[in-house]
Amino acid sequence: MSSLKGFSIACVQRLPNYLSYLKIKRYQGIENISTVTMANDLNLTQILVKKDLQQVSSIEGKPNVGFCVKRLIKDIESFLGFDNTKDAVLVGAGKLGSVLLSYKGFEKYGLNIVAAFDNNPDIIGAESGGIKVFDIAKLPNLVRRMSIHIGIITVPKQSAQSICDIMTDAGIRAIWNFAPIVLNVPDNAVVHNEDLAASLAVLSKKLKEVLD
Amino acid sequence: MSSLKGFSIACVQRLPNYLSYLKIKRYQGIENISTVTMANDLNLTQILVKKDLQQVSSIEGKPNVGFCVKRLIKDIESFLGFDNTKDAVLVGAGKLGSVLLSYKGFEKYGLNIVAAFDNNPDIIGAESGGIKVFDIAKLPNLVRRMSIHIGIITVPKQSAQSICDIMTDAGIRAIWNFAPIVLNVPDNAVVHNEDLAASLAVLSKKLKEVLD
Repeated sequence: MSSLKGFSIACVQRLPNYLSYLKIKRYQGIENISTVTMANDLNLTQILVKKDLQQVSSIEGKPNVGFCVKRLIKDIESFLGFDNTKDAVLVGAGKLGSVLLSYKGFEKYGLNIVAAFDNNPDIIGAESGGIKVFDIAKLPNLVRRMSIHIGIITVPKQSAQSICDIMTDAGIRAIWNFAPIVLNVPDNAVVHNEDLAASLAVLSKKLKEVLD
Repeated sequence: MSSLKGFSIACVQRLPNYLSYLKIKRYQGIENISTVTMANDLNLTQILVKKDLQQVSSIEGKPNVGFCVKRLIKDIESFLGFDNTKDAVLVGAGKLGSVLLSYKGFEKYGLNIVAAFDNNPDIIGAESGGIKVFDIAKLPNLVRRMSIHIGIITVPKQSAQSICDIMTDAGIRAIWNFAPIVLNVPDNAVVHNEDLAASLAVLSKKLKEVLD
C-alpha cells in the first residue's frame, strides 16, 4: 500500500519531521517561514515541501513572507490526528517492548501507552518505563472499559496473530505491529508494520547502488 | 524519497516478505508458484505481485504452472544484494542497540554485525547478544581494516551526527539510522532512517480514517 485515500504514505511519513522542525522555529520566536528555508534545513527539495504542505494545509504562503508557523503546526497536527491524544496498550513487555515503554517521545505525537501486557509470570506485576505490566488475560476488559483503539504488538511472531485477534475482538481498531509477520485483521481495523527486514532491504539496495 | 533509480521503495520493502514466503514454499517442496496463490497468501492484489516480480526478475511465469520458486528466490536475493553477506558495525549498545544485537534474523538478509561500540565505560568490554562492545575510539581502525560499509546508529539524537561523521570518515557508505534526527552524509554515502514518529504518523492517519 503506497497511499492513504489519496495522500502518499511518503508525505505522511515526512510530516512529523516538519512538525518538530516547525515547533523549534515557533520556540525561537519565528512567525513565518518560507518553503525554501524549510527545504534547505531539512535536506529536501522546495517543490516537495510545497507539495506536502499544500496537501495538509489550506493556508497560502505569502510572497517574501512565507507560511504562518503556528497555523502550519495546527494544520499538520489536525491532519495526522496528533491534536487528539489517543490511548494505547502494548503486548509483549520483553526487550523490544521495554524500549518502546521507556521511549518518552510518543506523547508529542498524541500517543499515550496506558498499560502493557505479557504472559510471562516473571514480568507480570512489574513496571517497565513507569508503565505497569498486566496478565494478558486482563486485556479485553481493560480495552473495552477504557475504549482503547490502538494496540502495539511486540511479541514473537508465533504469538502475533493470536494477540492481534484478542486485540481486535476487544475493539482495537489500529495495530502497530513489530512482529515480522503479515497479520490478518477485520475490515474495520488497520495495521501498520514496523518491518526491520523491509528497511534492511531498502538500505541494502541503496548501498548496492552507491557501491556499483 | 520514494524511489530508488526507478524502483519504488514500497516494492523493495515488500521483497523480503516474498523472500521468506518463497523459502517456506521451497522447503515444502513446491517447485512452481502462481501470482494468484502468492497474492492470496500474502494479502496483496495479483496485479501488484506480478508488477513487483517483473521488476526484479527476468523469468516469465508459465500459464497454469507459474514461476519457478528457486529462480525467483535467487533473483530477489541478487536484486537486493542479500546474496552477498555484508559486515556492519553498530554504535550505541544501550537498550535499543541490545535489541538489534540480539536479533538473530539479520543474517538471512545478508547482514552480519561484527562489532558494537559505545562510550560508556560500564558497557565497553562486555558482550551484548554475543557481540563484543568496544570503545568508540576504536571504530575508525576496525572499519578501515575490515573494509566495512554499513554502520547502524542507535545513540541518542544529540550524538547521532558526530557518530555519523566518524563513520563516514572511516569509510562507511550506508547508514541505518535509528536516532530521530536528519543526518548529513557525503554524496558517496546513503542513509536509511528507522523513524518511529513517521510510522506513528501513518498509523494515526489510518486510524483517523477508519474511525471517521
